Amino acid sequence: MDGLPTLVQLLRQLQRVPYLASKNLQRVAQHFLTLEEPQVAAFCQALLEAKRNLVTCSTCCAWQERSGHCIFCNSPKRDHATICVVETWHDLCAIERSGGYHGDYHVLGGALCPLEGVGPDDLTVEVLVGRIGPIHKEVVLAMNQTPEGEATATYVVRSLRDKEILITRLAQGVPAGGSLEYTDRLTLCKALSERKVY
Amino acid sequence: MDGLPTLVQLLRQLQRVPYLASKNLQRVAQHFLTLEEPQVAAFCQALLEAKRNLVTCSTCCAWQERSGHCIFCNSPKRDHATICVVETWHDLCAIERSGGYHGDYHVLGGALCPLEGVGPDDLTVEVLVGRIGPIHKEVVLAMNQTPEGEATATYVVRSLRDKEILITRLAQGVPAGGSLEYTDRLTLCKALSERKVY
Repeated sequence: MDGLPTLVQLLRQLQRVPYLASKNLQRVAQHFLTLEEPQVAAFCQALLEAKRNLVTCSTCCAWQERSGHCIFCNSPKRDHATICVVETWHDLCAIERSGGYHGDYHVLGGALCPLEGVGPDDLTVEVLVGRIGPIHKEVVLAMNQTPEGEATATYVVRSLRDKEILITRLAQGVPAGGSLEYTDRLTLCKALSERKVY
Repeated sequence: MDGLPTLVQLLRQLQRVPYLASKNLQRVAQHFLTLEEPQVAAFCQALLEAKRNLVTCSTCCAWQERSGHCIFCNSPKRDHATICVVETWHDLCAIERSGGYHGDYHVLGGALCPLEGVGPDDLTVEVLVGRIGPIHKEVVLAMNQTPEGEATATYVVRSLRDKEILITRLAQGVPAGGSLEYTDRLTLCKALSERKVY
């Protein structure tokens, strides 16, 4: 590809996009090259405007429009006494999609991972501790069921020890539609130990 | 997401990119939002410049710089008597990576697929027929081993029937590293019928 510097530059930029398998790079490049120029321009404009107009809410750290208000913290329909703590924005979106939660959120911005250099200062735990006041009744921990997620949950619990607030976490157990035969041992153990009265 | 029009616009643009699973859309959006603005600008510039500067070679239909020459057709190191016909640019790249071919190419721009509305006029078969002259000795058909690829190969062969040129196709058989136990029946049948003297 030595004679095609523009294509090389495009591929180099696409390589930095996560979740684009390297096998698909050429195909995605092909996609953009076969678009009409106004379509490419519209794509670029959406990217740049998103970068310019979206900021994190100073309270819950979720995305909000720079000129608007946080759609969670400022919603009159939500229960502001409950805060659901999630690792990332896409975890928040997953919980929103479930339709089973109507309180506030707090986006940590990741999970503790010493191997990848993510320490407590890289997360927004301080902001969470600072925002909890007398109106708040419950903090729901909704981290992923990974070692990093569990370490983060432990850290959040410890940071909140001086606050008089109920701390809960998501239930663990057999997933919906899951058959026992194919459920792993750890999940089954947790489903058993957290069994409920029928 | 009603209160986040900029984010919705970004997701809508990302949705049109192929090979980006919808599960990853939020993560890719997150990636672009956490980049610095100059990095997003560089990404957009690479896209727009690629769109402006890359055109298809009028001979072989591969990508070339608008201001330059085709790196295949104009290379003094390549054997211009042989033309390898491929469906797409990424198939061409796969063959280049193999290092086993040093002739010219011809990019058809896809494969015949009546169900998706891709007919002979959408491919560059006419250009291929028109470019074959006395200096050409061999056309290597390198379509994918799919029904569409095979239909396309048949069509190309028929289009070339008036040309006095050797037409070959890629060998079919057991892939490198493939174990016979896990090779499908059709592949084994083809490997047997095309067996070679040891």
